[in-house]
Amino acid sequence: MSLLVVGSVALDSLETPFGRREDVLGGSASYFSTCASFFGPTRVVAVVGEDFPEEHVRFLGSRGIDLAGLVRRPGRTFRWKGRYEFDLNTAHTLDTQLNVFATFQPELPAHYRDSEYVFLGNIDPDLQRAVLDQVKGPRFVGCDTMNYWITSKRESLLRTLERVDMLFVNDAEARQLAGEHNVVKAARKILSFGPRAIVIKRGEYGALFFSGDEVFAACAVPLASVFDPTGAGDSFAGGFMGYLARCGGHDHATMRRAIVLGSVLASFTVEQFSLDRLRTLTPEEIRSRYAEARTLAHFDELEADLFNGSGTPR
Amino acid sequence: MSLLVVGSVALDSLETPFGRREDVLGGSASYFSTCASFFGPTRVVAVVGEDFPEEHVRFLGSRGIDLAGLVRRPGRTFRWKGRYEFDLNTAHTLDTQLNVFATFQPELPAHYRDSEYVFLGNIDPDLQRAVLDQVKGPRFVGCDTMNYWITSKRESLLRTLERVDMLFVNDAEARQLAGEHNVVKAARKILSFGPRAIVIKRGEYGALFFSGDEVFAACAVPLASVFDPTGAGDSFAGGFMGYLARCGGHDHATMRRAIVLGSVLASFTVEQFSLDRLRTLTPEEIRSRYAEARTLAHFDELEADLFNGSGTPR
Repeated sequence: MSLLVVGSVALDSLETPFGRREDVLGGSASYFSTCASFFGPTRVVAVVGEDFPEEHVRFLGSRGIDLAGLVRRPGRTFRWKGRYEFDLNTAHTLDTQLNVFATFQPELPAHYRDSEYVFLGNIDPDLQRAVLDQVKGPRFVGCDTMNYWITSKRESLLRTLERVDMLFVNDAEARQLAGEHNVVKAARKILSFGPRAIVIKRGEYGALFFSGDEVFAACAVPLASVFDPTGAGDSFAGGFMGYLARCGGHDHATMRRAIVLGSVLASFTVEQFSLDRLRTLTPEEIRSRYAEARTLAHFDELEADLFNGSGTPR
Repeated sequence: MSLLVVGSVALDSLETPFGRREDVLGGSASYFSTCASFFGPTRVVAVVGEDFPEEHVRFLGSRGIDLAGLVRRPGRTFRWKGRYEFDLNTAHTLDTQLNVFATFQPELPAHYRDSEYVFLGNIDPDLQRAVLDQVKGPRFVGCDTMNYWITSKRESLLRTLERVDMLFVNDAEARQLAGEHNVVKAARKILSFGPRAIVIKRGEYGALFFSGDEVFAACAVPLASVFDPTGAGDSFAGGFMGYLARCGGHDHATMRRAIVLGSVLASFTVEQFSLDRLRTLTPEEIRSRYAEARTLAHFDELEADLFNGSGTPR
């Protein structure tokens, strides 16, 4: 089924303990659509500047991604500069240049308007709703956000959340949005804001999913080498939404598989800089790491007679 | 089968965001043996002072715990004072008074010497070996330690590790012991020091287990209320070792169930101050939360035809 993403297509400059890169391909819509492309085509709504290298456009096109909504505007492309310490769970933003993104007013090509699955990348919640307004009756809307919008545009964000099926946030964002330190309580409070489901991304620890009484915990596959965590969250969302759109369902069992696939896609993304690992990634590798995640998390039932005659004084 | 623990029996004073308690029952051997007592009897080697309340001795005895090795010495009982902020994953030690523990030389009662399962609680690695020296051919030795011993008694700790089957540490301790930030690499390095297996405890995130090529990730059951994390690690070890000793095996499938049971016991301990939750805990509640952990972590295989004809350009 049709999947739409709105977000950034950017040029990133990155510093990690393992090296640095200048002006490499980045942005939420780039990671999202490339990961989703393993499951089916994705429609992108985003803006780039005159300086955006044509090779990146060709790469995204080669993945079967629909770029009718990727507009080029006079000026420079959105740039993000970040640094990671040895604790790769936390990004330190060194510089953000909005450039052409500052005046971006997303406008959907006519054939995008029937999209059934929609992902609202981490952009101004006003723009997120502007995109939703242009889609006719989507079946499932996913949404990302960040501390900046939680603080500076809380009311607008809450209006967006009323129209969202599932929110993707990390621990800190969930706590901040809910004003509650305990993640279980924070998740329950955020569900009361509107979304039917919430996934809390916990970096190297995995992810927690809450929806009604349903709770699912996905452990991340432990990785011996993590190079660059940039794009992990968007890769997670891309794997999740791509799989959901491909299956066309969103029952809890499907959601659980989607979460693990999101976690698997993210685990590949962080193995190399930028989208480099995704360029060589194969469906067989995705399937294999998914199987690894199943083996990793498996344990059997307890013996029926475990507590009988154990000498326990009760 | 017979299970022995050496560790502290202490009086703790605790401050958490949810309240404080003075001079309550604590210590690694107290938490360990009480948790293990659900699976079978445990032999305790520890020391208390003249001020140690008889009611605590009666409580431990009522759990079927063998206290022949719990000696009372002139002086005051070991005391620990700690504080937790809203991030309940980290304990801040405010004060440690070794008291009678300062001159403790563990001596095993004769009937303890045939113990098949041995847990060396977090004490001076010299004392850990002194206990091992008194046990005739144990089948399985578990060992805890902390940053203090890793720094101040590294050589002695490494000598202990050569005689240990499984090490129980948290993320930070594993990193410090291995001198390696990545937990997978840290685990592999620590295995090269001698232990056949290592479990890395990650607080609210769960635990990772490594042994040879075997990797297991257990997600912690998300809790809506955590009151006091003191003793979580020793409860984990108590549940783990208690189950192992009861089963008498240590194949990987048994180890996985043991890790989840450890995590389940710890999840109860943190729900109230001190050992209070363990006083009312029933085998049925343990069984029920174990089943919850299984439901929490379950996800199905991928569809066999997932990547066929998905439009993916490879």
